[in-house]
Amino acid sequence: MNNKVVLAFSGGLDTTYCALYLSKIKNLEVHAVTVNTGGFSEEEIAGIEEHAHSLGVKSFHCIEETENFYNKVIKYLVYGNVLKNNTYPLSVSAERISQAVAIAEYTRLIGASCVAHGSTGAGNDQVRFDMVFNTLIPEVEILTPIRDMTLSREDEIEFLKANGVKMNFDKAKYSINKGIWGTSVGGKETLTSHLPLPEDAFPTPVTKQEAEDLTLHFEKGELVGVNELSLSPAKAIQHLTALTAGYGIGRDIHVGDTIIGIKGRVGFEAAAPLIIIKAHHLLEKHVLSKYQLLLKEQFSAWYGSSLHEGQYLEPAMRDIEIFLESTQQNVTGKVILTLHPYRFTLNGVETPHDLMSSKFGSYGEMNKGWSGEDVKGFAKIFGNQVSIYNKVNKEFV
Amino acid sequence: MNNKVVLAFSGGLDTTYCALYLSKIKNLEVHAVTVNTGGFSEEEIAGIEEHAHSLGVKSFHCIEETENFYNKVIKYLVYGNVLKNNTYPLSVSAERISQAVAIAEYTRLIGASCVAHGSTGAGNDQVRFDMVFNTLIPEVEILTPIRDMTLSREDEIEFLKANGVKMNFDKAKYSINKGIWGTSVGGKETLTSHLPLPEDAFPTPVTKQEAEDLTLHFEKGELVGVNELSLSPAKAIQHLTALTAGYGIGRDIHVGDTIIGIKGRVGFEAAAPLIIIKAHHLLEKHVLSKYQLLLKEQFSAWYGSSLHEGQYLEPAMRDIEIFLESTQQNVTGKVILTLHPYRFTLNGVETPHDLMSSKFGSYGEMNKGWSGEDVKGFAKIFGNQVSIYNKVNKEFV
Amino acid sequence: MNNKVVLAFSGGLDTTYCALYLSKIKNLEVHAVTVNTGGFSEEEIAGIEEHAHSLGVKSFHCIEETENFYNKVIKYLVYGNVLKNNTYPLSVSAERISQAVAIAEYTRLIGASCVAHGSTGAGNDQVRFDMVFNTLIPEVEILTPIRDMTLSREDEIEFLKANGVKMNFDKAKYSINKGIWGTSVGGKETLTSHLPLPEDAFPTPVTKQEAEDLTLHFEKGELVGVNELSLSPAKAIQHLTALTAGYGIGRDIHVGDTIIGIKGRVGFEAAAPLIIIKAHHLLEKHVLSKYQLLLKEQFSAWYGSSLHEGQYLEPAMRDIEIFLESTQQNVTGKVILTLHPYRFTLNGVETPHDLMSSKFGSYGEMNKGWSGEDVKGFAKIFGNQVSIYNKVNKEFV
Amino acid sequence: MNNKVVLAFSGGLDTTYCALYLSKIKNLEVHAVTVNTGGFSEEEIAGIEEHAHSLGVKSFHCIEETENFYNKVIKYLVYGNVLKNNTYPLSVSAERISQAVAIAEYTRLIGASCVAHGSTGAGNDQVRFDMVFNTLIPEVEILTPIRDMTLSREDEIEFLKANGVKMNFDKAKYSINKGIWGTSVGGKETLTSHLPLPEDAFPTPVTKQEAEDLTLHFEKGELVGVNELSLSPAKAIQHLTALTAGYGIGRDIHVGDTIIGIKGRVGFEAAAPLIIIKAHHLLEKHVLSKYQLLLKEQFSAWYGSSLHEGQYLEPAMRDIEIFLESTQQNVTGKVILTLHPYRFTLNGVETPHDLMSSKFGSYGEMNKGWSGEDVKGFAKIFGNQVSIYNKVNKEFV
Repeated sequence: MNNKVVLAFSGGLDTTYCALYLSKIKNLEVHAVTVNTGGFSEEEIAGIEEHAHSLGVKSFHCIEETENFYNKVIKYLVYGNVLKNNTYPLSVSAERISQAVAIAEYTRLIGASCVAHGSTGAGNDQVRFDMVFNTLIPEVEILTPIRDMTLSREDEIEFLKANGVKMNFDKAKYSINKGIWGTSVGGKETLTSHLPLPEDAFPTPVTKQEAEDLTLHFEKGELVGVNELSLSPAKAIQHLTALTAGYGIGRDIHVGDTIIGIKGRVGFEAAAPLIIIKAHHLLEKHVLSKYQLLLKEQFSAWYGSSLHEGQYLEPAMRDIEIFLESTQQNVTGKVILTLHPYRFTLNGVETPHDLMSSKFGSYGEMNKGWSGEDVKGFAKIFGNQVSIYNKVNKEFV
Repeated sequence: MNNKVVLAFSGGLDTTYCALYLSKIKNLEVHAVTVNTGGFSEEEIAGIEEHAHSLGVKSFHCIEETENFYNKVIKYLVYGNVLKNNTYPLSVSAERISQAVAIAEYTRLIGASCVAHGSTGAGNDQVRFDMVFNTLIPEVEILTPIRDMTLSREDEIEFLKANGVKMNFDKAKYSINKGIWGTSVGGKETLTSHLPLPEDAFPTPVTKQEAEDLTLHFEKGELVGVNELSLSPAKAIQHLTALTAGYGIGRDIHVGDTIIGIKGRVGFEAAAPLIIIKAHHLLEKHVLSKYQLLLKEQFSAWYGSSLHEGQYLEPAMRDIEIFLESTQQNVTGKVILTLHPYRFTLNGVETPHDLMSSKFGSYGEMNKGWSGEDVKGFAKIFGNQVSIYNKVNKEFV
Repeated sequence: MNNKVVLAFSGGLDTTYCALYLSKIKNLEVHAVTVNTGGFSEEEIAGIEEHAHSLGVKSFHCIEETENFYNKVIKYLVYGNVLKNNTYPLSVSAERISQAVAIAEYTRLIGASCVAHGSTGAGNDQVRFDMVFNTLIPEVEILTPIRDMTLSREDEIEFLKANGVKMNFDKAKYSINKGIWGTSVGGKETLTSHLPLPEDAFPTPVTKQEAEDLTLHFEKGELVGVNELSLSPAKAIQHLTALTAGYGIGRDIHVGDTIIGIKGRVGFEAAAPLIIIKAHHLLEKHVLSKYQLLLKEQFSAWYGSSLHEGQYLEPAMRDIEIFLESTQQNVTGKVILTLHPYRFTLNGVETPHDLMSSKFGSYGEMNKGWSGEDVKGFAKIFGNQVSIYNKVNKEFV
Repeated sequence: MNNKVVLAFSGGLDTTYCALYLSKIKNLEVHAVTVNTGGFSEEEIAGIEEHAHSLGVKSFHCIEETENFYNKVIKYLVYGNVLKNNTYPLSVSAERISQAVAIAEYTRLIGASCVAHGSTGAGNDQVRFDMVFNTLIPEVEILTPIRDMTLSREDEIEFLKANGVKMNFDKAKYSINKGIWGTSVGGKETLTSHLPLPEDAFPTPVTKQEAEDLTLHFEKGELVGVNELSLSPAKAIQHLTALTAGYGIGRDIHVGDTIIGIKGRVGFEAAAPLIIIKAHHLLEKHVLSKYQLLLKEQFSAWYGSSLHEGQYLEPAMRDIEIFLESTQQNVTGKVILTLHPYRFTLNGVETPHDLMSSKFGSYGEMNKGWSGEDVKGFAKIFGNQVSIYNKVNKEFV
């Protein structure tokens, strides 16, 4: 047992408290770690680092996890067209898992005896962090000062002020979490069931009024190009986010079941995830078989829920990832869209794997692949059991 | 064997051909039947009737099926939030089944030996009609002149002109099918994979620019009120359709798998179905348990697909309907929305059955229902198996 | 707050400890309750009552729950052919839930402030009791002395001896739990992964060598007759248990996932449940449609797992029960079996709802319902998409 | 167009008719092909070849497909523990697909214009052959004389006798189909719903009375050893079949839905498949996570049904195979069984991947991995939503 603790550090009120409390009161050697999953700019990271040092941490480290996050998680959310409750791209849930895994690996790397997170006892994140740590670094003790002491915001501020910490203690009207897979917005209205978020709660103001065409290029299910630009998938997501800023696309409120059983509501703005998933799904409708579409839907709903509930390390998740990857073999082609303020339209696709190819018969038009007689026979056999059922059981009514 | 034939008659080119052909050439006693599932006005029905008589039919009958259609089909599509491929409310598929059942019952009622439909050999409708007829009236012969003789549009027109039929033979640019659960639009662009439908292909022009608030009232899953107006569900759908006309809401293109295995694309405009389903689903997210939501999703996807594929009479459909009804017990409350041109936003809900009630703990806020310690224990046990799995199998890597 | 506590009492070591500890040490007014779900004879109940009183309880009450247990739980396990992991009829899991609900209702009835159960911290039952109590009587405090003080068997015996309790303290070689839906057998070999239970671990010795025919009568999915005897379903199960004793049928070891994440192994002997479920399933294969069979399987696997995991009060369970009941409408008829030592064979069924009726075509024999041409057409259309898929994608290989 | 036809030839009555009819009457160049999937000995093949030549075929070819059949189909049936309707290992269905694919490839190889099979219009096999041929060799014409001319057994015999064919024309009491994955037995009793097959209908008489121990070795889900013998999986199946002959294990009657909608009954004897699947499943229960077991079950049921219905070439099947393979990574170890007349018992497993390892806590015994407090917390949170549901909705009753 050494006295090293790795602290998952974002620089917000809760983790600022933890940094100070663990070093000053608990006399631990605090190693603050920020995991960047695409939400922080270089300047922001520099600011967080400075802030960490001002709190007396022994070291600060920023793990650049964006590419990894894409490859280990987002990729499969795209393959699976995952929208939790048909709405939410799992922006925060997905990111938190990736961060927890990175923190666990770092903890083991530097051989710390403890790992700390600033979660309260009332949300999903505590479960996600705990579960990943319990599994990957079971030998390491988990410290959660805010949860353990059931501290209020006011308790924390008082302690920090008393210890001379300088930071902006004004409560932001909304709590914002930004990452490559979307920005979540919580507070005030989202604590009620009946109020929508006001326009200005969303971080990116709507500035564009004109429609704009957009072409997305997919290769084996991955976004590899935006208009004329070829990009790695992670870069393509970021490029698309920049390009669609100003349209207010992908805003909604997710109403969902938390891991701890209560219902919660959270706003989000996730233009790129929504556009990518809908475009990807449209392409799939053209190139996948009916049964591939059907099975994928079942599997990916399960994948999304398990990810949301912190079960990322469950071995069945790896099996599903392999399944999803297998389905993407022909998901190659381009999708044509138009951006409008607050919405987008999917115009169509072009793909060599299109099963709608008119070479094999168009819907509603006669063709050479089969005859009306074939369909008559099909209808008779396809409905045969129901027809028998009806005859057998009619006799009793 | 008598020489009576019941003909499913819409007054379009195909069924006009059938009426004339069956009476003139086949010398059958043709009983033309139109089933109104909410798409025809009284004037239109009168026009169809006149047209039918001009073709020499023995009788014309209009079956008013709208309420029945709601009670036997649409109700369950709402309970199940059914959108085929996450997009299409099954406007036509649902309606066709209801029509086929009504025709079958009428055929048996008047004791006809034959029943006829004007389907070609290239679409879904032939299978739907055939399957319902094979099951409900297996003793009756099915006649499908257009399919059997693989007639082209030109063949039909030539025959009709030669027989002195007067009607508008101009091919409409788009083939339109209108019913209470939405209007489908097919033709030209929908025969390609890459082109969107132009604005003017949709029957209802966009005339409104101002946002407008809307409140929907649900009782046990059924829409029973729009704003201050209490209405039967079928009337409420029609009222909502009228009220949202001019917004261009609910337009999209469905890309799907036909019953006969090819892929097809069809445009649609279905403001009321889309608004109702999304509002209903939101209400459910507040009042149903996580597992109710999950199970409903699986079974309603199956319900929608089977309906689409003409398996409405499969006994499992009745079992699912009973299941879906059971889940709706607490789906009572109001949903608040705002209409905008081409889109709508869901603002929130008010319901006495709200499981998000802050009495039991708010997401992200501490509460009296459970403690941080409880969640720690939960996280440990919830992740226990994965943790064991990791320990066992790590030893081999 | 009064000082009344209701204790779930079986008279075994753990609950004997609880009775004494709660009354003597904690000075509570202990109301011992035994819930009989078919496992206890009248003499056994009398013995338990005497024992309870000798421990200083204020009252003893035996709740006769067998019929209720059948109607609220077993019935649906039969409808669903529920065998956990394809093996185990959930003998104990099902029973425990029924007992917990009965205890909760009794606790509220007599207005006790506390409820106690003798579970340790290492099994499933603690979760089942806790969950039912947390939901049905959240205002009541749950006491679990054995779990809270992590007492060993020896600790308990020492305390009881010191307090002059007279009972058989010899550790039974196997821990046995008997109820109407089967007897579980745990200990020694079941703690390993590789050893089978020896013959004498099972409570009912094998004494019969001759085969014996048996006819079971089902009505809407419920067992209502055994051979020539008409009986209520609960009585029929008990009659079948008596009738099959001596055959050693329905013995096996269940390997499963506990609610708390570890794997466990438990032996069981459950002749009647196994025979009933297999016979019922065979009857269903004759009278249900393919899709009814398919959907039932999915739903009932979920039902069984949730019951096992203590989620009996989840509202989705009620929805599934209604679904399952709906599927049983035609599950009426008789099933003919033969009993042999250690096994039974299903010989066949007789039912007016038989969909295999040769009136509609026999498998492998030609018939008048459809022609070879119909099947040709069917095969072409049924395989149409795969055929197109192959053509489209072959071009790229 | 040449006049070559490849005929799927087994030497039975139907294919004998086809060989003669196609060469003599139709003057086609008949290339008879027998695909051996483990059911024919070398002598039997030699006999079939001689018979083929006596009928005037141009060539005879035997495709040895056993290993291929294992690798492409059986392997996945084992991974998925596939028993159709919980009973039938799909002996014939699986084999037929493999044969159809081999025939299709051979047809293309020799450039024949036609391919023929001897199916009647009343069974599953016609659909399986048609679908595989339609997809893999759409340019080739399918000939099915028996189906097309709706020939009776008597018609065929008359024609063959008239053409001087010498073979045993006695109708076998039962129609038997033998392959590596089991033997099916149809006829007489299986055409009724209520009669079991008599003892002598099964091809392998029961000669053994003594119990016998058996150990099966699995590696990544495949059977690679029987007792002390290491074998390739296909050889291991055949060895196990020989070794268990005389026990009468794995006999049953499958009642199922045919592809063409009617119900059918077929007897089978499949000792090796039953033993392998049950042993494999037991091993999985020890090494797979709860969710892996759950997901596997859903997808392998689908896999089995689709295979049964001739949809082997559906691309989703490949995706599921990859998924199933992924789940088998740790399915390595041995399973200990005992053979008895007509039955076998699974005694236990030994595997390094055992998640039941007592190192991590035994079921029902306290341990160091977690505490009673942890489980209390778990139970509270795990049941939290139901508890809230109950509070919210109780207010309205």
